This record gives sequence, structure tokens and C-alpha cells, in this order.
Amino acid sequence: MFSDLRTVEIFAIGNELLVGQVLDTNTHWLIRMVTGLGARVTRAAMLRDDYDHIGDEIRAALRRGPRLILTTGGLGPTEDDLTLRAIARALHLPMRIHPEALEMVRRRYAYLATLRPNFSAELNDARRKMALFPEGATPILNPDGAAPAMALDARSEHPDGVTTIVSLPGVPGEMKAIFTTSLRPVLANTIGAGGYVERTIVLDKGDESRIAALLKEVQDHHPMVYVKSRGQMFEDGLHLTVVLSIGGSNLAAMREEVRRTEEETISGLTHLGYSVVRVLES
Amino acid sequence: MFSDLRTVEIFAIGNELLVGQVLDTNTHWLIRMVTGLGARVTRAAMLRDDYDHIGDEIRAALRRGPRLILTTGGLGPTEDDLTLRAIARALHLPMRIHPEALEMVRRRYAYLATLRPNFSAELNDARRKMALFPEGATPILNPDGAAPAMALDARSEHPDGVTTIVSLPGVPGEMKAIFTTSLRPVLANTIGAGGYVERTIVLDKGDESRIAALLKEVQDHHPMVYVKSRGQMFEDGLHLTVVLSIGGSNLAAMREEVRRTEEETISGLTHLGYSVVRVLES
Repeated sequence: MFSDLRTVEIFAIGNELLVGQVLDTNTHWLIRMVTGLGARVTRAAMLRDDYDHIGDEIRAALRRGPRLILTTGGLGPTEDDLTLRAIARALHLPMRIHPEALEMVRRRYAYLATLRPNFSAELNDARRKMALFPEGATPILNPDGAAPAMALDARSEHPDGVTTIVSLPGVPGEMKAIFTTSLRPVLANTIGAGGYVERTIVLDKGDESRIAALLKEVQDHHPMVYVKSRGQMFEDGLHLTVVLSIGGSNLAAMREEVRRTEEETISGLTHLGYSVVRVLES
Repeated sequence: MFSDLRTVEIFAIGNELLVGQVLDTNTHWLIRMVTGLGARVTRAAMLRDDYDHIGDEIRAALRRGPRLILTTGGLGPTEDDLTLRAIARALHLPMRIHPEALEMVRRRYAYLATLRPNFSAELNDARRKMALFPEGATPILNPDGAAPAMALDARSEHPDGVTTIVSLPGVPGEMKAIFTTSLRPVLANTIGAGGYVERTIVLDKGDESRIAALLKEVQDHHPMVYVKSRGQMFEDGLHLTVVLSIGGSNLAAMREEVRRTEEETISGLTHLGYSVVRVLES
């Protein structure tokens, strides 16, 4: 069900994240989107704006071989926005002004100049920098900002032999706008369509250590479903919950597998003397 | 100022993070605490509950050689709480019941049994598991939960030859309670005391691309200070800001260096025709 071919790694890039000036909300949003498409996020990391750090991480990721690497941050006009140059160095690719990317940047500033008095649409070096792409990369339209996103295929240990690297801006609105519009063809070609099923069994207050053995048994019987217990707060207070979840491409089969897992879990919990308060679906 | 010896990596461990069931708030909190102590977080990652993933990451981190590795998550009683076993495997250490840790677990359940009717204080296997520690590790009291935290010194590429690995629970309240109380001696021995100075220069609405060259120049003159521009929302709307920040052990020297950097930045911005609305300190 979880096709291990459709794996994704996420890198959030920017010193401001690692000194705590900015809370990274992009990674969680991307995890939910990617999981919702039935793909599997295997790893996520926050990295400093540093050529060596980023290069080492990109090369290590290509050795692990996810189908898709998503990066956020570091596409802007300032000197420390160095994500694309770091990726190019890691892959030994030269950087070139990409004509389509330059046209996107040019149109953006021409548009902004129509909105703001005394705003120059001229392409200075800092603006032109946003069209500097690794050779072979494709610019992806940013409908909400100046810096185009980037897609680049790299050779990797993925069974298909290729990992697609997609670099998105760090500004959450721009990142989301790109992901949900102009990135769609890239997502279709890499992780495709699919879905995610989640059921939360809510128990009365209880002790996690008493259900550990049961959950291990259920997990062993249903390896495709991710079985996780934890305390969760609801309107009526803290409850022990068991969350069953699965991602993949065959929704009907996934639903059936979760249904069987749920039956076995509830039967086991009842046997142990727990009562199920309710079951939530998402 | 930023002593490169006092570097920290953070790992948030748990499948629930990577399917988006739980938003990781621990990492940002830890980043702020560690930065506030004047140390430098060089990297943070989210990892699945998987022996190989965690082991590979721990070994790779020891090769980079931070002074401290903080992990959150995976200390509980269930089978997928495997952080300590994964660290032990990565370092080729046997796992043993640690008598002090077992005593901490025993006391916690004895205490809970005084609060809840029909609650058994008996140490079953799942509860005993929380006292299974890698050989040589030290248990750290968890004042708010059952699972003790762990501190373990490992040989690494850090200039001192040693990296301390501290594993904290994933429940935010427990993690924070440990960090701010029983972990203090470990923090004093690894990253010590220090501080962090941050000044935010708030400009009127403006264009980041026009100040890129100036900020690069300021950054080159003051390499110890981290210089970052970005748009930020305030009560009166969006402003372009320049944030100057520095961490380290010598607060007076850090304040002086930030003051000089601020003077140079404001003078350059004024020269470019920008006006400073206000300067914020933290």
C-alpha cells in the first residue's frame, strides 16, 4: 500500500530557522500535503545557509534515493539566499541565467511597478540572481512572488535511478501557491496521485504501558498500517488514543486494511478491559 | 563570539511527525533555549522510528562533531519507542536495566497509584523497558513523566573528542520540565552559560533586492554577527526588516559588536534612501 518508491525528503533552509527567529511551518504543511497524496516522507531537516552543509545533505539524500526532494528557502535576492548555487555545486553543474526564469522575474517586477508609485521595474543584479539556475533545471512559476521555484532531475540510488529536486521559496504563501498550482505536473510525474486514510480510536483515560504488547501484535499482523498510541487532548479532556493510518495509491484496499486493523485493535482493547469512547476518521 | 565549539544538533524522532499527525514544536523551543545560552544549533532533523535511520544519523552527526546532540521522542513504553536502542546499536553498546532509572520509573508508578483508584504500580515489561539504557549512559530525572531522559558521552570529531548525546521524551511538557531542571548540570558541562543579542531594524515597506549589496558588505565587515533581511508583519502592517543577531559567552563584547554593526547598517540604509521606523531589541 505504502509504495516505497514514492518517498520524499524535505529540507528547510535558512539560518533564521536555526536561531529560532522563524518557526518553520512549511515542513509540517508539506508533510501533510505529501502524505495526503499517498507518498511517504522519510526524513526532514533544517539546514543553515552554508554551501557545504547543503551540498553534503543533498549528496547524502541522493545516496538514500528518495523519489523527490523538496527544499524550502534560500531563493531570494540576497547573498545568503544560496540554495540553488549549493545544489549546483553539489551536483557539479554550472549556474546560468535561465531565459524563462528571467522572463518570470521581469514580469513580476513590471507588475509590481504598476502597483507602487516610484517603484523601479529595472532588473538589477540582485533581481537577476533569482533567474540563475543550475544547468538542466526547469523554472516553476511563482504566482505570488518574484523568485521562481526550480525542478531538477538528479541521478540517485532510487530504484528508478533518478531523484527530482524541487526548490521552493521559504515565504509560506509563495511556497503554498506554487505547490498547489504550477508544481502539479512535477508532482504527478514523481509521486503521482494517491491518498491517506487515518482512524483514531479514542479510549477512556488509560495506561499506555498496558496496551503495548497488543499494539505490537496488531502492528505485526498489519505491517502496512502505521499503529501508534498516544495521549491526546480533546474538548472533554485527555484521552489515550490509538491512531491507525496508511498512505498509498489504492484507496479501496487501504480502507479495507484499516477496517480490519481497527476491528482487531478494538477487539483486543475490549479484551483488556478498555472501552472505546469514539472512533474518528480523517 | 559565536564559539564554534559550542555546537548542537537536534533530532525529533517519531513517525507521527513525518505523517503530519503531530506538529513538532519541541525543536523550535529547544533551538530558542540553546540559542539563548549562546550556543549554535547547526542542524535539526525529523526521523522515523527506524533503527537504521536513527543509527545512520547519529553516526553522521558524530562525524560532524557537535558538542551536544539533543533527541526528542521514542522513550516511552511501546515497541516503536526505540530511540535508546537505536543509539546503543549505532555505538555498539549493550542495553542494560539501569538501577537508578528503574528506581525513577518505580517511584513514578507508585506515585501515580496514590492518585488513581485501581491503578497498579506493578513494573510490567513495558514499564521496565523505560529503564533499559545503553551501557555507560546516565539517567536524567523526568519530573513530569515516567520515562527518564538519558545522557551519554560518545567519541566524536568534536575538537574536545567527545559529543554528549541527550535523549528527551517527545511529550512537550516533560521535555521542557527536564530541560529546565534536571538537565542543567549536563548543559553546564557541555555548552555552558552564555547569551544571545538580537536587534531588529524596522524599515518602511521596501524592496529587499535594493539592499542586498549593502547587507553583504556589512556581513563581511562583521562576520560574527548574523545579518538577515526579511519582510515581517507588525501591528501596522508589513515592513522590511534587517535582523542582527549574535550568540556567545561574552555578553558585553557581543552587545558592542552588534551596536557597531547596527550603526553601519543604519548609515548605509539611510544613504540608500530608506528610513528606519524603529529598532527592536531582544
